[in-house]
Order: sequence, then C-alpha cells, then structure tokens
Amino acid sequence: MKNKQRISELINNYKNGYSLEQCFYKSQDIYDHEINKIFHKNWILAGHISQIPNIGDYFLFEFDKESIIINRNKDNKVKAHINVCRHRGSHICVEKQGHVKAFTCPYHAWSYDLDGSLIAARLMGEDFDKSQNGLHPAHVELVGGLIFISLAANPLSLTKMNEDLADTFDLYGFSHMKLVKQKTYSIAANWKLALENYQECYHCTPSHKEYAKIHALALSPNKFNQHKERYKKEASGIVRTEPSDAYFDLADEGQEGYQYDRHPLLKNMKSGSLGGKPVSRLLGKLTEYDGGSSEFMVGPVSFFLIYDDYMVGYRFLPTSVDNCICDVFWFVGDAAVENKDYELDKLIWLWDVTTKADEEIIVNNRKGVNSKFYKPGKLSEMETFQQHFLNWYLNTLSAD
Amino acid sequence: MKNKQRISELINNYKNGYSLEQCFYKSQDIYDHEINKIFHKNWILAGHISQIPNIGDYFLFEFDKESIIINRNKDNKVKAHINVCRHRGSHICVEKQGHVKAFTCPYHAWSYDLDGSLIAARLMGEDFDKSQNGLHPAHVELVGGLIFISLAANPLSLTKMNEDLADTFDLYGFSHMKLVKQKTYSIAANWKLALENYQECYHCTPSHKEYAKIHALALSPNKFNQHKERYKKEASGIVRTEPSDAYFDLADEGQEGYQYDRHPLLKNMKSGSLGGKPVSRLLGKLTEYDGGSSEFMVGPVSFFLIYDDYMVGYRFLPTSVDNCICDVFWFVGDAAVENKDYELDKLIWLWDVTTKADEEIIVNNRKGVNSKFYKPGKLSEMETFQQHFLNWYLNTLSAD
Amino acid sequence: MKNKQRISELINNYKNGYSLEQCFYKSQDIYDHEINKIFHKNWILAGHISQIPNIGDYFLFEFDKESIIINRNKDNKVKAHINVCRHRGSHICVEKQGHVKAFTCPYHAWSYDLDGSLIAARLMGEDFDKSQNGLHPAHVELVGGLIFISLAANPLSLTKMNEDLADTFDLYGFSHMKLVKQKTYSIAANWKLALENYQECYHCTPSHKEYAKIHALALSPNKFNQHKERYKKEASGIVRTEPSDAYFDLADEGQEGYQYDRHPLLKNMKSGSLGGKPVSRLLGKLTEYDGGSSEFMVGPVSFFLIYDDYMVGYRFLPTSVDNCICDVFWFVGDAAVENKDYELDKLIWLWDVTTKADEEIIVNNRKGVNSKFYKPGKLSEMETFQQHFLNWYLNTLSAD
Repeated sequence: MKNKQRISELINNYKNGYSLEQCFYKSQDIYDHEINKIFHKNWILAGHISQIPNIGDYFLFEFDKESIIINRNKDNKVKAHINVCRHRGSHICVEKQGHVKAFTCPYHAWSYDLDGSLIAARLMGEDFDKSQNGLHPAHVELVGGLIFISLAANPLSLTKMNEDLADTFDLYGFSHMKLVKQKTYSIAANWKLALENYQECYHCTPSHKEYAKIHALALSPNKFNQHKERYKKEASGIVRTEPSDAYFDLADEGQEGYQYDRHPLLKNMKSGSLGGKPVSRLLGKLTEYDGGSSEFMVGPVSFFLIYDDYMVGYRFLPTSVDNCICDVFWFVGDAAVENKDYELDKLIWLWDVTTKADEEIIVNNRKGVNSKFYKPGKLSEMETFQQHFLNWYLNTLSAD
Repeated sequence: MKNKQRISELINNYKNGYSLEQCFYKSQDIYDHEINKIFHKNWILAGHISQIPNIGDYFLFEFDKESIIINRNKDNKVKAHINVCRHRGSHICVEKQGHVKAFTCPYHAWSYDLDGSLIAARLMGEDFDKSQNGLHPAHVELVGGLIFISLAANPLSLTKMNEDLADTFDLYGFSHMKLVKQKTYSIAANWKLALENYQECYHCTPSHKEYAKIHALALSPNKFNQHKERYKKEASGIVRTEPSDAYFDLADEGQEGYQYDRHPLLKNMKSGSLGGKPVSRLLGKLTEYDGGSSEFMVGPVSFFLIYDDYMVGYRFLPTSVDNCICDVFWFVGDAAVENKDYELDKLIWLWDVTTKADEEIIVNNRKGVNSKFYKPGKLSEMETFQQHFLNWYLNTLSAD
Repeated sequence: MKNKQRISELINNYKNGYSLEQCFYKSQDIYDHEINKIFHKNWILAGHISQIPNIGDYFLFEFDKESIIINRNKDNKVKAHINVCRHRGSHICVEKQGHVKAFTCPYHAWSYDLDGSLIAARLMGEDFDKSQNGLHPAHVELVGGLIFISLAANPLSLTKMNEDLADTFDLYGFSHMKLVKQKTYSIAANWKLALENYQECYHCTPSHKEYAKIHALALSPNKFNQHKERYKKEASGIVRTEPSDAYFDLADEGQEGYQYDRHPLLKNMKSGSLGGKPVSRLLGKLTEYDGGSSEFMVGPVSFFLIYDDYMVGYRFLPTSVDNCICDVFWFVGDAAVENKDYELDKLIWLWDVTTKADEEIIVNNRKGVNSKFYKPGKLSEMETFQQHFLNWYLNTLSAD
C-alpha cells in the first residue's frame, strides 16, 4: 500500500451504521491489501470431494492471480498445492480438472508426485536439491465433504466451529452429499458490493419476488419474528434452530468466523423451489420437512443455504478491483438419483434466477458508487449482518 | 493530482502558438483535474425539452463516471438530479429514458419524488431524516428549448449571453425547435483531440470535401474574407451578422464563455446539404435563405451550427483519458413535418459524413501524439480559435 | 521510473543462475525503462528490401507506441522516419504498406518528400522554417537484404559483425533472398517471457516433438556434443561451423551484440521440415546439404535460423507490459519459384507449428509468474544462453 496513513484515516473516519466510502471499492492499493489480508489468510470453499473421487483426480481452484491444485493423493487424502512450477513458474495443470499419475510441468517436464514433491528435473547440476523444490502447499480442511483451503502460513483455527456444529453437520449429512451442479456468475463490480448484496435481505422484496414468495427473511423484522415464533412451535428439534453467531467481528481471536442459524420459510413452504415444493430426497438424518431453512457461513466469502432436501453453496471471489465472480454450488444427498429423486432444472431454479437478478443489481450499485457524488448512506434495520461484515473488514484491513 | 508542481511547470512551459505536450493527452492525473475543473464546473448541453414533453418524462445524461437524470416535474419545470441513491449508491434509473410517477431505486425501493425529495424508505429507524436524503441536484438552465446543466456548486452565469443573444435566439426560434435525431460517435482519443479538431477548419479542405463544397470557412483567410464581404452586401439583417466573441479566454470573469458569429456559405449555397439545397422549413422568424450559416457556442464543449432551415448541435464528452464521445443533435422548427418538410437522411447527411471522417482523423492524430517522438508543432493561421481554447484550458487547469 | 532505488536493489539482489523476480514481468515502471533503454536504442529487424522493390514504396514497422515508415527514396536508398506529422502529430501513413510520391498527412495536408523533408505546409506565416520541420529520421542499416533500424540518437555499431560475418552472409546469399511469408503471433505475456522461451532448448523435447525429431539441439548437452562431433567430421567447410559469440554480455563496448553458430541436425536430416527433407533451392553459394543449420542473432530481439534451403527470421516486440508479438519471416533464395522450387505450406510448417505451441507455453508461464507464490527458480544446464541475456538485461537496465 502506497499510503498506509491515508488508509488508516479512511478507516478511522468510517461512520458506524453507514456504507463504505467510494475508494474502498475502487482503490488498487486497498484491493492489494484485501488480497493479502483476507484472501491469502481466511478459509475459502475450494470445492467438494465428489469432484475428485479417485486417487490421482484433481481440479483447479482459481481466483485473482492464484491457481491452486486440489487433488487426491495416494493415501486417499485431499491435498492442495500452488499451481506454479518451481523452475520458471509455469502453470503445471492447464486443464481445469483431470486425472494424473504425477504433476508434470508442460514447459520443461519437471515432475512432482501427488504430494507435491519434486521427483524429476533434468540436467540441474549436482548442487541442485530436489527436496527444496517441491510445490508450495496450501492448507486443507474438510467440513464433511466440503473442501476448504487457506493460503496462510498459519491459518485460523476451525476447531471451535467443528465442535460447535458437529451435530448439525451430522444431521444434514455433510459427509453424505454430492455436488450436482456448479455455475459461475461474472459480476462487473468490486467483490464487496457482491458480498454486501448477499448479506442483507432488505433488497429481497423489491428485487427477488421468487425468493420473497418462499422465505420469511424477506419480510420486515416484526413480521419475520412472528413467522419465527410460529416456526419454533411447529419445528421438530432443538439442534436445527439453535443459532451459532461467531461470524465476522463476533469470531474468537485465532478462530475462523462462522455462523449457523435456522429461519422459517413462509407457511406451507418446504424447500427453495417453485411453490416451495420438495425437489429432492431429504438430506442426512432428516425424516420430515419442518418448514425452515438454515444459513451456514464459514469464513468471509463462503456461504451455504441448507434446505431440507438440498444445499446451495455461495462463494465470492475477486478477479480484479472492479470485477468478481460468484460461484454457486448445488448439493443433494449422495443417494439421490437424477430424474428420479431430483430434476436439475427444478433444483437450481430459485438460486439461478435470484443470482442472475443480483448480477444486474450489483452492477447498477457499482455504477452509482463510482460517481463523484456518491456518499456513504445510512444502513437500515435489515442490514445488521452487513454491518458486522463492515466492522470486521475495516478491522482486518487496519491490522498489521 | 499527484504532482501539482509538475503540472504547473508544464503549463508554464507551454509555448504560445504551438500544440500541447503529449502528457496533456495521456496523464490520468491531468484527466482527473480536467473532470473536476471543467466537466464538474462549466455548462454542458444535456439535451432538449422535446425529449421530455410530459410531466414524469426523464432521460439520462451520462459522461465519465456520472449519470444525471433530466426530468420534467409536476410544475412542468425541467429538473436535473444525480442518478445515485442516497442509501447505498445504486443507479436509480437504469433505462436511458422513460416515464415515472416517482424515482424508485430498484435495489431497496427508496423512492424520490420528481423534485428529488426522498418520500419513502423502509425500516430506517426513528432518527433517520428523510429531508436530508434527497437526490443531489444539478443546476439547469434553458436556452430556448436547449437544456444545459452544470454540476458546480456555484455555476458560472449565463446572464450576459442571454441578454446579448436574445434577439438571435428569437430570430432562429430557439424556443420553437424539435430534436429529430441524435447520434453518438465513439472516438478512441482524448476529448481534447476531438475538441481541437472541431475548432479549426485548416483540415476542412484536405479532410472534408463535402463540407468544403458548401462552406467558405474551408478556404484560406484571404479568400474567406472576400466571401464575407460579398455575403455582408447580400445578407438581410444586422442581427444575423454581428459577432459576439466572449468565448474561452475572452469570457468575462464569472460568466460562462459563449460565441456567436455568422459566416458565408459558398455562392448559391442555401443550407448544409448536398448541393447546398434547402432541406427543411425556414427556422423561427426567417423569411428567406441569406446564404450564410451561424456558429454558436455555449461553454467549452457544446457547439451549434445554425443553417436557415436546421440546426446541428455538437457535444464532446470524455469517457476516459483515452476515449471520448461526440454526440450530434439535429433540430428543425417544431412545425416542420417529416417526409413533407424534411427527409431525415438528407438532413443528417453532411454532418454524419463529416463526423465519421473526423472519427478516423482524430484517432490517427492520437496514435502519433502517443509516440515518444511527438513534439508540439506550430499552429497555422487557420487555428486561432483553437489557440483561444488552449489558453483558456491551461488557465483553467492552473486555477486553484 | 518512480523508484530508481527500488529497481537498483532488485537488480543487485538478482541471484545468478536463477530466473527473474516477478516484478520484472509486471511493473509498468520497468517496462517504460525497457522501452527507453532497449527498444529505443538497440538494432531491430524492421523488414526486408523485397517488401519495397520500387522507388516510392513503403511499409510501416510498428511496436509499443511507435510507428516507423520504411521506404525507398528517389536515390533507391532505404530510409526510415517516424510516422508522426510535425504539425499536430497525426500519423501520416495510415495503410500498413503502399506506394507514394510524397508523404502527405491526411489531417492538414502537410507534405514531406521521400527523404522526410517538409515540402508543403499552407498558411504557416512568414517566420515558419520548413527546414526545421522534417520528419524525425531513424537509423537504417542493411544486412544483405535485411533492413535493421535503430531509434537511438547514436546507435551501436554493426561494424564488427559485418566484418566478422562477411563470408557467412556471402555464403548464404543474404543479398539474394526474398521474403515469401510473414506471420504475426500475439502472445499475452511480457516480451521477456517470449524471448527467454526462444533462448533455450530445455523445453524442446517436452514441448516441440516436431522440432525434436529434426534438431540435435533438443538433446542433452552430452548427446548434442556427440552429434556435433559427427557433424564436424561430415560437414563441408570451416566458414559454416565457426561460432561468433559476441552476444548480450559478450558484446564489445559500443558494438551491437550478435551471434553466429552452426549446429547439427539429427542424422539424415537436411532441412527444417517434415522428415527433414529439402523444401526449397539451396541458398546462396551452397552446393550441397551438409546436415546442419545455423543460428544467427543481431541485437536483442532479432533471431534467424538458416537452413541450407531457407531462412526463418524471428522478432519479438512488446505491445504493453503484459502483451507482446512474435513476428516470423520466411525467406528463400530469390531465384526460387513458388510451387516449383518450394511450396509455402511445407516451407512454413515446422516454425508455424512450433510458434503456435510456444504461444500457449508462454501464456501458461505468465499465469504462474503472476502468482504471489512465484519465486525465481534455478536454471538448468540447457539455459546458459538465457543466462547471458539476463546478465545483459540487468546491466542494461541499471546503466544511466
């Protein structure tokens, strides 16, 4: 960052309860800072084990300037390494996914085993130490079948979340899901404008009529609370409704932020689908639809929405200061059979139509934020989750 | 600006009678300075009242990073507001033109009346003051039916121009025209290269043979003056030939610059058209073709060419340091009927073909100006108007 | 350069035997420095006299922000001038090649003769001195029919090369070739990644199976040397096998770097073609295929590969910090007749397929070099030529 002091001033001048100043969405310096302090530090959803069922399978997880190889090694473990040859820096894997016996760089044929160790490099002279030239590893953690990676030297801990939510993961069968669809939405706006959009439902009624017909969360806090009371009376078990708010500025020191909460759908709605009808088999150990859906978040950019019969994953990644992508993942129980238990177009309908609408909304937001006349505006009573994000974000930027 | 001193030096080093140094066309710092000191200050043609005939009609006027809503309010007055929601900054109007009862932001449904006052915002808490959250207004002035806007807090005055040219506006019927065509030409060059091109007719003979067959202005000063003498003898009234040179560095302190002058067409030419033939009904109070055409300029980027039977408006706007647009507007008297009094293709022919040629010329100019070997060159005797612009431009940049 | 000291530190920190730090491939400051210190100084292949056979013929040679007119003047001499009008800087020639009596600027019709002298400029006033407003010249040297230009005020000398290689040029008939094909390959990577790729054959075996079936240079140094011994015994004359290593950091002070060397093809191969078969008439004074091919280099970005029956020219030019072009030229003896002595598709096959493969390789290299995890890697025993380039490059950047 060229001007640390200027950033500090901006952060100190932030007015609580308001949106951010323009430069947070436009400055290349701030963007570079974010990449280092957030995207090279926090845990990010990389994908799902069903993408690499066999030893030797791999896929690439890419954002900003990074490409990370996620693979299954000979011990059947999931591994992650930076896709950069230690010789002259070429990408080693050039296909987005594949199956290999070893990772051989297409440029000069340096070859690495499935654990990233350099196993062959021609004509390197006698003083060359292969053991010092393995691929740079990334940290991997599995949450059920979800693969998270961290590029930090010393990642935040996921221990508290894993203990806290063990029963939840078990109930919804996090280890017994499969990924049935992934879709990438390109958004011509700074990643935070996309993330802030995801974090509040103040816009749901004006912008997402499909969502608003299913979810009580689109309603005002008063009306939402009435639905919550109704739902709590009707719903089946304590584990499904107990919130775990350890997200953003509420996270413990040294622990990655996370959140779990369960919210009511509107009356008679069973799933996130047209008419609220079931669209797949019940997940995990569930035995009935209870009329709710769960929000689950791990780290700052990975979000999940768990219906009783399917789960949607949301991941926000920057590609430049002015562009980002939103990847959406659809999961069903691994016993569900396509065209018998679920139809793909019905399964993805709600969050495809909703994300497409958000693409437009977020770009319109960006256009106005770029104006010299834009000033931070006051947040509403339905933007408190976003406020937690902003507090954490500014804190994170100002940390050494 | 990162280096005010460097800019000052560049300005001080400017050699009168020469073109500008390269960096004035390439520097992002200088561009940012121009946006603030010129485009957020001077009066700019936004459009014409015939674009918003009814209460509730609006259109967007956009340049650089700004979008301005021009609309007709309930009192039938033309208003202008920045198209940026006071909540989180979204663009409010996303269509280029339309008709609305109120301006409702598509993001969170904040709603503003036709005068920009915030009239509805859900769930904002008790301490929220709607009266402090109206849309940011822009200043509007009408010159006949032409709509000019200024983004300045305290705009320059148009009083002197309006007094000076009252008879002229009346003669040509500025209040009785309609816009019949608008066309946008994108030019991959700094806006000043396009403006300078418009400001001199030294290039007319080599580059615009269509124009040169009609206008005496394409000739050398000597020959032009002979035509001027002939025209003055033949022409009908003093009001049409009296120049008002208050443009650029000739403008009074606190007054917006403007210019009016009338020039001869070549012998027997009546209008700016193929063969110089009439192409519409006589404008305003005119009763005959007098073989001349008028140049009219308001502020630094809005120019008009008034033939006896139609008027062309020219507006230059930056989109980035390396790109600009030229918008051309064609006006006829509001009583003229299409395909009876005028045919659109014949009406627009001359300035469409001329502007297309200029697009190429200006881009070739840019390519050469980008070279490390480019040096400011000496201006000819036909580039004196451009010289006034350059003097004003450098003065304006160096002002506090 | 914003931070000369930072660049100096980077250069001082360079670890011999390793690839460059990331910023050398990404920094706009360093790129600007390279343009000034290398591309505006060293000799670059501009083209071939067969492109301008007649007086008045010209073609444009363009890179980065420069456009240079290469033409044949009235004395039948090859000349080079910057394609920038001395008036307001327009490009004068807008077609890539053509035939003219004089260079007349399309903007304001200033006219220059075939030696760049200003011969006509209208209405410039009495104090205007045409003799001070000619086109900016560039230095031209012919190597046989090859046209080299230098934009330096005082170019490096080519004397030593011309003396050293006079017999070589004569043997291969450098003055008796014609250009039969030119092709431009756009590469989305910094120009040095493309140049480094050309400079080493460590990647030939993994990446270029077509090349590796013909050239011994793709083999390890040990095996290559065995072929060299065999070839020297079999080959015909001393002039063809004597190396002249005066390239990069081996060049004399004040002299442009150059190199000539002859290498064995694999056994029974005669030319760079499918199956190593002849693809044209023998060049110059050659009377037989001797199973070798020659490498010839002039200055930092122009390379030639001389087979017994055709020559390929390679030229690397930057277009921006992140993009470059590789121009490939194919030459045959001027007596060779198409479809009788040579077929174009067979002639260009090897280096077209090889260059296309390199396009991909180099872009993959760039992607990895952009990663925050990229670190300079150790060079192999087959990357010594590249090492000479890196030494020269860093020396050149650090010179005043």
